This record gives sequence, structure tokens and C-alpha cells, in this order.
Amino acid sequence: MIDILFAAGPDDWADYETPLRAALDGHGLSYRLSRDLPPEGVDYIVYAPDSQVTDFTPYTGLKAVLSLWAGVERISPNTTLRVPLARMVDDEGLTRGMVEYVTGHVLRHHLGMDAHIVNPGHDWAPVVPPLATERPVSVLGLGILGRACAEALAGLGFPVTGWSRRAKSVDGITCQFGPDGLVKALKSAEILVLLLPDTPATQNLLDAETLALLPRGAAIVNPGRGPLIDDAALIAALDAGQIGHATLDVFRTEPLPAGHPFWAHPRVTVTPHIAAATRTGSAARVIAENIRRGEADEPLLYLVDRSAGY
Amino acid sequence: MIDILFAAGPDDWADYETPLRAALDGHGLSYRLSRDLPPEGVDYIVYAPDSQVTDFTPYTGLKAVLSLWAGVERISPNTTLRVPLARMVDDEGLTRGMVEYVTGHVLRHHLGMDAHIVNPGHDWAPVVPPLATERPVSVLGLGILGRACAEALAGLGFPVTGWSRRAKSVDGITCQFGPDGLVKALKSAEILVLLLPDTPATQNLLDAETLALLPRGAAIVNPGRGPLIDDAALIAALDAGQIGHATLDVFRTEPLPAGHPFWAHPRVTVTPHIAAATRTGSAARVIAENIRRGEADEPLLYLVDRSAGY
Repeated sequence: MIDILFAAGPDDWADYETPLRAALDGHGLSYRLSRDLPPEGVDYIVYAPDSQVTDFTPYTGLKAVLSLWAGVERISPNTTLRVPLARMVDDEGLTRGMVEYVTGHVLRHHLGMDAHIVNPGHDWAPVVPPLATERPVSVLGLGILGRACAEALAGLGFPVTGWSRRAKSVDGITCQFGPDGLVKALKSAEILVLLLPDTPATQNLLDAETLALLPRGAAIVNPGRGPLIDDAALIAALDAGQIGHATLDVFRTEPLPAGHPFWAHPRVTVTPHIAAATRTGSAARVIAENIRRGEADEPLLYLVDRSAGY
Repeated sequence: MIDILFAAGPDDWADYETPLRAALDGHGLSYRLSRDLPPEGVDYIVYAPDSQVTDFTPYTGLKAVLSLWAGVERISPNTTLRVPLARMVDDEGLTRGMVEYVTGHVLRHHLGMDAHIVNPGHDWAPVVPPLATERPVSVLGLGILGRACAEALAGLGFPVTGWSRRAKSVDGITCQFGPDGLVKALKSAEILVLLLPDTPATQNLLDAETLALLPRGAAIVNPGRGPLIDDAALIAALDAGQIGHATLDVFRTEPLPAGHPFWAHPRVTVTPHIAAATRTGSAARVIAENIRRGEADEPLLYLVDRSAGY
């Protein structure tokens, strides 16, 4: 009997209980799944940051923590957690959803759609955009999401530069890495996509200095993490025309507080953290597959490198 | 010496003279290119509908008319034209531009972007769209443009149905044809893309009856031809909520007249015939290639079937 503690919010339980049981049953596992189990008998914790669990010490028999979220910055630093931590990588839901959001908003900025969507003067002004082949896009972050987005954009014809901390290689993408590579990736980017994790090294990566490296009028799409951007520096760059538009899906505080200058800024589009929602059906299958692997002594999928923080 | 008459508007001459000469020189042809040549000596006419030429009878030695436009509905019915007519198919400019416009606006409707682009109440309302795999799209017209768009949309994960007058087959696309196929293509289409030519058979293809076949709230993207849609029927369907939004790039009269109800309708986006602009460099190479072929007695590219009208 495998004891699985569901440690997330009450809404999550309503959403996940049925698909999780279906996925676990699909592997023929014998289990107990509950929001309340004696700590010392728990084998796996299915986890989200809005859980009541903050101290993992009482879970003496714990084999692994399986995060329902892709972002693990709130649990990864927890020093009471001494067993493997796996993040959510829901290819079907999360990755495909992110690719759709990123390609959609990059095409929106590329085509200059907003001038037609909001056109109170009814102006007929046929300005033909350049082809995608003439519109350089940079994607910061070449993890699973960044790579999938970079490949989709390259497939549409955009010349794509990808940047990562360490050297990587992706077919059809100009790959840059390290501090010098970041300068190159920024200098060429008429549209910049942020898909980096939130770590001490990436906080405020976009500040006054790096924003100034972008071509004048560049658009920014941030479906990654809020703290990647210095908010005040971005507002100043938008006001100065250095940045043409910012489409932001993630923020330091969510929901974005009423009165935050992003809401009313004419060159900012706020989307409410919808770029990459985990879909319960496919996410439940990822959790169940990792429990199956744990029980079969196979390596878990999507383990977090906690020294790097993601 | 090949005599080539440039019969288009004065702006076209300014745009095209240099790239045309470069493309013709690239084939090593010996030619005279001018807006004014003795009719009986003219070998080829490079043509746009804003030309002064309406009677082709004096051009007794004419070998072919090479259209600068993709749409040939204004010249095809001309009974004084008795030599082959080739339309413009500018793969690099026209087809790629169309694919970018169509994928961008389909993703815009799919993702529900407009609710975030125009959000005066600053509402944080995280509604997660379905994945593209759950959003059926139909493309009416499987010519070069329709096929390229259908393939790009399928590549993004959308289940795509394509419809054409005669049976066609495209990998990865559910192909329908004829009147029964049209009903099927419309009934499944949460997003409908119109890429049909303007012929007597396609005029008002979208009228009250066919609009009613679409799923309630469907979006329409028309970068094809204005007369495909019965304007009054579309306005009525939008007012009734049967159609959720229409993004229109082409109109019966262009520029779209001030005061036309499309301009002010909250569920209509007007774009000023920019979906597929021919780019002069690549278009000039298509014209020059056809002149080379004509001189070498090779079949011309992109010949118009004038009995069908396109």
C-alpha cells in the first residue's frame, strides 16, 4: 500500500482527485490518496505551494515530493526537504500552451495587430510588416519551455537567438550563453521572450542597463517569472520609447495589485498568469508515472537540481 | 529584343522598375522595358488593374500577360485578352506573409487576446483557453495560400479541416469538397479562415444560411476576397452572437468607406488589405522567370484557368 499525501489547496483537490485516481489506477498501483495521512507512513507528497506543509521533518519515510507546479522557487530552498523533488513538466498542457501563447503574442507584436484592434479613428493605413524572416527574436532560457518556443518561432521563419546560462545547442537556433552571449542576444532582439527560471542569478536580469541594449522600440513578452524584470526600469524604458511594448503574464505579486502602473500603461498588456496552465488530466498522468517509477526503483522524471534552484 | 510593356500604376513603376531590370538582367535577357511601347511590337505585358490598358486588341504580337497581383478577377473576364494570363504567386512574400497573418490572427482568437489588450476595468480573470488540439479550425480554399495556411495551423496543433471545390488531399488536414463537404467544414469550425478566390460561384458564400451552420460564437478571419461575405448577413450574425468576432482584411470597396458598419462594430477588426502584400523583389523575380520561360518555349508558371476565373 502506497501512501500518497495530497498537500495543495482545496481547489486543487477538487480538480485533481478524480484524474489522479484514474492515472494511478491506470498503472495498477495499490495506494491510499488523501489530504490527511499519518506523516511517518507517507511515501509521496503531491505538492503545491499553497499547501499547509512547510516542515517535511515529520515525514520520516518520505520517498519523493512531486510538485504540481513547474516553478519550484518556493519549495526548493526548504532545508527540511531532504528527498528528491520533481517539478511538473506537463508536455501536453504546459509546454503546448506556452508555445501557443508565445507564438501568438510574438506574431501579434510582429504584425502590429494592436493598431487595428484598437483603431478609434478608423484609419485605413496599409503598413505592410516585414516578413518574419526579417524580424530577429531572442528567447532567454533554453529549458524545455524555451526550447519548444524557440523551435516553434524558427518554424514560422523568425531568425531566433536562444540564450542560456550554460552552452547549449538547438537545431535551427543561434545559441548564445554566458554574460557575453546575453549582450549579443539582447542587441539583436526586436522581440524578446523571457523563459528563464526565477533564481538569485536571474532576478532583475532585465534592468535599466540590459533594457538599453535592446534595439529601440523592441517588444518584450514575459511568460516566465515576474522577478526577471525590474518593474521601475521597464516603466522608464517604456516611457522613453526604448521599449515599444511589454506583454506580461507573470508579476512579483499576483494578482497584479490594483493601482500597479502596469495596469494603466498604454504600452503594457497584462495577461493573468495564463500562458502555461497545467491541465489536470495530463499533469495527473505525470504524477502517477513518477510514483510508478519510484516504486519500480527507476529514476524519477523532471528532478530538480536544488543547488541551481530549478 | 523582347519588348515588355509595364502597364500598372505610376507608384508601381517606381517600386518595380529597378527590381524588374535586376531580375531580367539576371537571366541575361535582351529586352526593352517601358511604360510606353508601340502596341504591335509588345511581347509581354506586366499588368496591374490600375493600368490604362483595357483593350488588348492592338497588341497583335502579344505572347502573355503577367499579372503583378494574385487576384485576377478584374482582368480574367476581359474578352479582348486572347493570350495566356499568369497570376502572381510570390512564395516568399505573399505566401509567407499570408501564413503569418493567418496564424497570428487565428492564435489571437484562440487565446482570447483582445480581452487583455483592451481591459479598461483592469480585471484579473485567469481564464485558461483550451489547447489548440481542442480548437477545430476550417480553411475554405486549398490553393497555394490556403494549403500553406492549413499546414501551418496543423503544425501548431489545431485540428484543421480544409475545403475546396474539387477533391484535394493534403497531409495532416481533413479535406472536404463540394456542397456536402462545405456543410461539414462549417459545422466544425470554431475559427473559420476564408482563402477562396472571387468567382461567381464563391460570391456571398458566407450568407445568413451558411453563417448559421457555424458553431455559436465562432470567429471568422477573411484575408481572401471581400465578396465572399454577405456584409449585411455578417453584421446580423455578429449582433445576434452567432458569430463571436470577424477579422476582415478585404472588402467589396477599398479603402473601406468611412461610415461602413464594420468600422464601428465592437466585434469586427478591420485590417487594411495587408495580409498578403507582394514584395517587389521576389515578385520581380517571378515575372522575369516567366519571361525567360516564354522565350525558351517552356510552360509559364501560375497560368490562370480563365474558365474557372482564377
